[in-house]
Amino acid sequence: MEEELIASEKARRRGGVRMLWHWLTGGNRTKPQDQAKLSPSDLRFVRTVFREIIAGSGGEVSARRRIELITRLYRKLSGEGRTSILEILTNEFGPDERMVKRGIQAYLDTANDAARRRAEAGLRQALASPRIPIFKKFNLLPDGVKFLVDLRADVLHFMRSHPEFAAIDDELFDLLSSWFDIGNLDLRRISWNSPATLLEKLISYEAVHEIRSWNDLRNRLDSDRRCYAFFHPRMPEEPLIFVEIALVHEMADNIHHLLDEEAPALEPRDAQVAIFYSISNTQVGLRGVAIGGFLIKRVVEQLMVDFPKLKTFATLSPIPGFGKWLDERVRAGDDRLIVKADHAKLCAAGKVQEPTEAFRVLMSGEWQKDTGASVALQPVLTRLVARYLALEKDKDRPVDPVTRFHLGNGARIERINWLADISPRGLKQGAGFMVNYLYNLSDIEENHEAYAREGRVIVSSSVKRLLQTPS
Amino acid sequence: MEEELIASEKARRRGGVRMLWHWLTGGNRTKPQDQAKLSPSDLRFVRTVFREIIAGSGGEVSARRRIELITRLYRKLSGEGRTSILEILTNEFGPDERMVKRGIQAYLDTANDAARRRAEAGLRQALASPRIPIFKKFNLLPDGVKFLVDLRADVLHFMRSHPEFAAIDDELFDLLSSWFDIGNLDLRRISWNSPATLLEKLISYEAVHEIRSWNDLRNRLDSDRRCYAFFHPRMPEEPLIFVEIALVHEMADNIHHLLDEEAPALEPRDAQVAIFYSISNTQVGLRGVAIGGFLIKRVVEQLMVDFPKLKTFATLSPIPGFGKWLDERVRAGDDRLIVKADHAKLCAAGKVQEPTEAFRVLMSGEWQKDTGASVALQPVLTRLVARYLALEKDKDRPVDPVTRFHLGNGARIERINWLADISPRGLKQGAGFMVNYLYNLSDIEENHEAYAREGRVIVSSSVKRLLQTPS
Amino acid sequence: MEEELIASEKARRRGGVRMLWHWLTGGNRTKPQDQAKLSPSDLRFVRTVFREIIAGSGGEVSARRRIELITRLYRKLSGEGRTSILEILTNEFGPDERMVKRGIQAYLDTANDAARRRAEAGLRQALASPRIPIFKKFNLLPDGVKFLVDLRADVLHFMRSHPEFAAIDDELFDLLSSWFDIGNLDLRRISWNSPATLLEKLISYEAVHEIRSWNDLRNRLDSDRRCYAFFHPRMPEEPLIFVEIALVHEMADNIHHLLDEEAPALEPRDAQVAIFYSISNTQVGLRGVAIGGFLIKRVVEQLMVDFPKLKTFATLSPIPGFGKWLDERVRAGDDRLIVKADHAKLCAAGKVQEPTEAFRVLMSGEWQKDTGASVALQPVLTRLVARYLALEKDKDRPVDPVTRFHLGNGARIERINWLADISPRGLKQGAGFMVNYLYNLSDIEENHEAYAREGRVIVSSSVKRLLQTPS
Amino acid sequence: MEEELIASEKARRRGGVRMLWHWLTGGNRTKPQDQAKLSPSDLRFVRTVFREIIAGSGGEVSARRRIELITRLYRKLSGEGRTSILEILTNEFGPDERMVKRGIQAYLDTANDAARRRAEAGLRQALASPRIPIFKKFNLLPDGVKFLVDLRADVLHFMRSHPEFAAIDDELFDLLSSWFDIGNLDLRRISWNSPATLLEKLISYEAVHEIRSWNDLRNRLDSDRRCYAFFHPRMPEEPLIFVEIALVHEMADNIHHLLDEEAPALEPRDAQVAIFYSISNTQVGLRGVAIGGFLIKRVVEQLMVDFPKLKTFATLSPIPGFGKWLDERVRAGDDRLIVKADHAKLCAAGKVQEPTEAFRVLMSGEWQKDTGASVALQPVLTRLVARYLALEKDKDRPVDPVTRFHLGNGARIERINWLADISPRGLKQGAGFMVNYLYNLSDIEENHEAYAREGRVIVSSSVKRLLQTPS
Repeated sequence: MEEELIASEKARRRGGVRMLWHWLTGGNRTKPQDQAKLSPSDLRFVRTVFREIIAGSGGEVSARRRIELITRLYRKLSGEGRTSILEILTNEFGPDERMVKRGIQAYLDTANDAARRRAEAGLRQALASPRIPIFKKFNLLPDGVKFLVDLRADVLHFMRSHPEFAAIDDELFDLLSSWFDIGNLDLRRISWNSPATLLEKLISYEAVHEIRSWNDLRNRLDSDRRCYAFFHPRMPEEPLIFVEIALVHEMADNIHHLLDEEAPALEPRDAQVAIFYSISNTQVGLRGVAIGGFLIKRVVEQLMVDFPKLKTFATLSPIPGFGKWLDERVRAGDDRLIVKADHAKLCAAGKVQEPTEAFRVLMSGEWQKDTGASVALQPVLTRLVARYLALEKDKDRPVDPVTRFHLGNGARIERINWLADISPRGLKQGAGFMVNYLYNLSDIEENHEAYAREGRVIVSSSVKRLLQTPS
Repeated sequence: MEEELIASEKARRRGGVRMLWHWLTGGNRTKPQDQAKLSPSDLRFVRTVFREIIAGSGGEVSARRRIELITRLYRKLSGEGRTSILEILTNEFGPDERMVKRGIQAYLDTANDAARRRAEAGLRQALASPRIPIFKKFNLLPDGVKFLVDLRADVLHFMRSHPEFAAIDDELFDLLSSWFDIGNLDLRRISWNSPATLLEKLISYEAVHEIRSWNDLRNRLDSDRRCYAFFHPRMPEEPLIFVEIALVHEMADNIHHLLDEEAPALEPRDAQVAIFYSISNTQVGLRGVAIGGFLIKRVVEQLMVDFPKLKTFATLSPIPGFGKWLDERVRAGDDRLIVKADHAKLCAAGKVQEPTEAFRVLMSGEWQKDTGASVALQPVLTRLVARYLALEKDKDRPVDPVTRFHLGNGARIERINWLADISPRGLKQGAGFMVNYLYNLSDIEENHEAYAREGRVIVSSSVKRLLQTPS
Repeated sequence: MEEELIASEKARRRGGVRMLWHWLTGGNRTKPQDQAKLSPSDLRFVRTVFREIIAGSGGEVSARRRIELITRLYRKLSGEGRTSILEILTNEFGPDERMVKRGIQAYLDTANDAARRRAEAGLRQALASPRIPIFKKFNLLPDGVKFLVDLRADVLHFMRSHPEFAAIDDELFDLLSSWFDIGNLDLRRISWNSPATLLEKLISYEAVHEIRSWNDLRNRLDSDRRCYAFFHPRMPEEPLIFVEIALVHEMADNIHHLLDEEAPALEPRDAQVAIFYSISNTQVGLRGVAIGGFLIKRVVEQLMVDFPKLKTFATLSPIPGFGKWLDERVRAGDDRLIVKADHAKLCAAGKVQEPTEAFRVLMSGEWQKDTGASVALQPVLTRLVARYLALEKDKDRPVDPVTRFHLGNGARIERINWLADISPRGLKQGAGFMVNYLYNLSDIEENHEAYAREGRVIVSSSVKRLLQTPS
Repeated sequence: MEEELIASEKARRRGGVRMLWHWLTGGNRTKPQDQAKLSPSDLRFVRTVFREIIAGSGGEVSARRRIELITRLYRKLSGEGRTSILEILTNEFGPDERMVKRGIQAYLDTANDAARRRAEAGLRQALASPRIPIFKKFNLLPDGVKFLVDLRADVLHFMRSHPEFAAIDDELFDLLSSWFDIGNLDLRRISWNSPATLLEKLISYEAVHEIRSWNDLRNRLDSDRRCYAFFHPRMPEEPLIFVEIALVHEMADNIHHLLDEEAPALEPRDAQVAIFYSISNTQVGLRGVAIGGFLIKRVVEQLMVDFPKLKTFATLSPIPGFGKWLDERVRAGDDRLIVKADHAKLCAAGKVQEPTEAFRVLMSGEWQKDTGASVALQPVLTRLVARYLALEKDKDRPVDPVTRFHLGNGARIERINWLADISPRGLKQGAGFMVNYLYNLSDIEENHEAYAREGRVIVSSSVKRLLQTPS
């Protein structure tokens, strides 16, 4: 391995640096490119390089070359080879126990404030992992920040089988949280006037409502649409998170209308409502780094400047966990699902005696195409969605991740929409329902506080009525 | 104070945000603008704001407003008011002793590796100062990075009388070192085509050879000159460090020729030598953040691409400590200063009996205009400069700061130049001498290693001869 | 009409200028948007506006508003309405016969050189059409240059039935030739990194080898491809002419290989040959304005800088007229088509007695899939292509327009490629053949001269052999 | 000469194209660089080159090289050499008399409209000077447009002694008017953030109130100032005309206050008045090409967007011809100068009997420092300025060029300001007076029409009173 790298290193020096570089880093793919494992001599080589980076010998140029060798090697490795390297980092480049204990003793021995402050600094130093300077060195490479993001994606992946990688994960999270501090990110609009290289990333990254074609994409970037993303200056061609917005006249209750390529574009200057209908994170390696909430607030600020007539800012969001939750309840024969008032209607439509049984029957067929079933199910399901979103909790917070996200941002649950997404995924995940979360600017901070401190779930009066319906 | 700030906060909301902002931050001046002290109610206000920032209550917009209030308040305070705030940060927002001790106990109690790793993380957390998130929040402000740099300049200033500020200084240094990591900096050329707003900063920041006028500046940016600086993306109009280069045919031995506005510009494509004749750091608050060495190397890389005929990269540097050192030696009557061979010549020129006495007499007059004195002094002084640069050490490193800087970068002491800077400052600081440090690309890494590991001082053969001259 | 325009003019003033503007100009479509004709009052209105523009009354703002009204009106008119306006321009805003005759008399009356020069200026003035200042006024509108280009496209279209429009055509051609002078055009590279708004124009404008999808386009902009276009600063989003280039190792002989989306990209830095495989003009209204030849030369200059290993610059061009020419010859039973040496082979393959008959039979079937026919036809057809390209003349110049274009640029006919484009269009137009024109930089000027002065057709030695083959 | 050019041409090919180019074109200086004359062989060479350009032989590259040779040669010539070339162009490359006469005959022979239109085109063609394509070819050079502008400056200069150059001047004016059509110009703001290369041009081009230093310039670009210029895309570093504006609270009556570097900057967002206090044309060669009026209107549009509180747009303008006019009247003893009411005051102040004599005496001393003289003179002079501006005519238009310019743009004479410019030039040219011309947006078009059609001079009511004062 080492020989090969050194050979290609020589090739690199002879010329064609950029091209070779591109080939070696293999674009931005995180998947192992071949099944290479690490031989014993490779392992020695890796350890040596890590030690030299920490020692700082040879100056910047050497450091850059060494860290480049590591990225090239890593990119070419199989999963097994990669875990070997992560194991080395975990086990051999963490804090030195003796130094930590010495630092502890020094701290415990201090007699006054000034001495204690010095001892704090010393102990902090002893606890700092030697691998952190290694991680920071990637910043020297043009593609190094992206490499580190991808490395953390790997760490998260391998942690399932290697829980000890949590130590690295923590440190990478801290480092990336600092690098991807909201103050370092740029909000940029993406439009049909953006480079195709960027647009094709939207196509591949869109996680909520798949972009089926360039025509579909163009529709989402039409004159009555907006798309914004956060970018990091060192990853200028990678949107970190992006949101798609429709400028409309009324709060949207149906995703298919928004994605209809044939629908005419509205005059955006007349729009009163901005619907955030898709938010996608793109970088697995940034999991937990909170930038989504900032995105919505910054975009709302921008839209208010550009379109002074906008009065309402709301989402049209999926309910990813409802289907599964409902399925479990129905299987369990949970008869609290159905309020008394609906018993007769359900039984008639399902042609059975027991309302729970009727529910099961109706849901098992293609209910959404069966008018009778639809009429009977709508009120029942709507109430269930309300209950699922607002009342089902895990550790004092709503179970639905989308709900947690928007409530955490200060939004409220505004309206539940029937037959809003009848794509196969929409039916499976959310029984065809979607929900509007409302971002009411004058309430956002208060809502956020109430939710952050007490876990209070803010809902509109109509949703409140759904929740209060007596059984 | 609080009322005033809140009032102006309201004014800000009513409009004119940018302009007010500019007024409030008072440009980039670090000097206290008036003699405002902090009243007890102000102190309560500051503490409350700090606590709210740490608690993270209210979301990004609130955080931004709060941190903005702090910067506005701080900029308006006198030195006394500022130290009050720094004292609060030092004494009230450091690590919590009880938490640290609890973390220590947990660490000491661990039985296995996995547990120890978790305990490490916990202890590290306990040692992290609560004020660090406060510092990081400045990143939310357009001018916040610059504010923090200026804040550290204040800390360094007040540390003389408040040694306890060292705790904050450490943390700010770590934070700024991370933000100003070389990977985050942009190298940009500054030319006569650059904005006047930037050029006037060169005039005010130039620390080595004062820029006397716009004509002087234009001469330094002429077609046979280059100027490069590092910039940080969040301080795009502030050069952090800049270097001025002359493209010439021979290694320059005299600064006055380089700064002569009347001298014709050479054809830069024919130049064989690049002379780095001035390097200026501009930000006091970045003291210790090592970016100077990178600057020279990056610029050398760039010049090699632009001017393939360049063979030699060298500085023409001042010797800031020589004058003072020499004065002390002469006052002390140190007769090792003068080698035997020069005794007679010196005594003749000085018209006295004792060579040390002659030396004192000659140096006390305007020797540089007195041919006799010059002839007698040149060999003596040249040898003394060589000795001062290469042999005078402090903690095993050369006493001269410029020498330490260039040797640390991998350069060597190449040539000592007589009557090279006869400005009043040049005569006072360096007895009119300047020195060329040579950046020989094939030796830089090796020189750097030898210096970094063993403190070895690399000199050219001619300087070696000066050092070897027997007394 | 007038009322409507004035009403919408008021709407425009009330706000939303840009949007309304966009609606009114109807994008860049040249097709009449509805069937509106001009009423007598409209005609009066148009005449009045034209007269006011010429009179220059009211200053720039008025002129801009008036000319804007004209473009909005024109865009909305049917073909009949448009010709009415063109008729007004032709018949009522040309030179004044009396003024011309007066100018002629003044010229004929002059006695000396100075007077004659003054009279020349006067006569020139009299001959200048009053409509020319009207045309120039379009330059005041953001989209006005494009409007005029589209107007000329209309003029060219309507000239078939209105030959008198030739007068306007001449003047528009002169004006556009001046505006689109090569010195005013910008050469820009188009890549996959270009805005989608621009890329979709390539898709719609490509005239030689249809771009079937975004994937097809991406392949044509891959790392081993280049695409360049000329742009005019006043039409920054409209490529005027563009060329697609493949960087390859050998002179390409087959278009399908170049357009194969599955073929791996080559390393462009190793390429020795640049193949210009598609050149498309995009603006009908610029017919006759010579910019194509400049495009190739500028692109060659650029490629030589970017890829120093490139040795050969050649096209892979269609032969649009060969199919039709051949068909006519075959129908006419022209037996000079076939050289004696091929008689037997053709008759055998065609299973007939007469070589011309055999030829007809073979060409009438799907010869390209029939090995026997192919073997027999290849030498015959190849020779015929050579003859068609090099010897068939019209007014002393080759009949094939592509040949005329490249020879006029100084290229030579290099190689004739069999089964090079077997798309339906390729078979129909060029019998599946394509031709390489070689741009040999050291010969271009000489070739151009020889062709421009004497109509000499330069061919390679292999094509020469094809031409010399005795019957 | 020819040999030298060819030698340097070879040097150019060997490399260093740009640098050599710069040297040869000698920057943008129009002054002859040495005293070279044209030898007979040079003249032959020039004629040959011109003929080859017209013949279009050799393609674009040759044409570019030839036209480049001409510019290099021309730049090096003395005035005598330059006139030789202009004579060649005037006498040998104008229309061909025989062709013109043939065209005339063809025109006179036509029988119908269609034929006449064709004959018109033919005659127009015959009248087009062969030198025009030569002029147009300069567009191929990076610096060619500027060359042509400078060439016309030469033509205007030499026309005094060579009236026959009027023919070329006409053609160059037509060509430059077309190239510098307002639709082709970019309005750009110039600020202290602009490149120093551009700012130093302001310093050298400012024609009204000399810019004395970089500090003076910075004051004129302060936050309460604006500066705008028109640029041509082919001369991107040359402002064609620029205007300096002060944003103030009241209509300025004194230039010294505006130029006071010590005066604090106002808050521009509060300004109600924009004062255009300096407008400078920079290119002699664009004389007569009307871009000044557009500049003011475009800048007013821009300022209204940026500063919605602005209510008044006015100039503070010099009165360049008043001093001379007054001097002539005084010398002539024109006693209509002084109204009766002032006789006594003037005689008292001047200590003489005759008012005209008193006037002469007072004006001959340093009247502006003499309170008595000032008191006596102010009403008299103010009335005279009003009369000079509004009533003194030449060909039915005001004699003062600045007045003609602003009235032609639609402004009116608003106010006459006493002791407004007491610099030596201000006193000499305008007796210390300056005038405000008011651009009242709702009246501009009407004023312009009234002035353009009838030469009507629009004045404010206060100026009207000055004019009506009875003697």
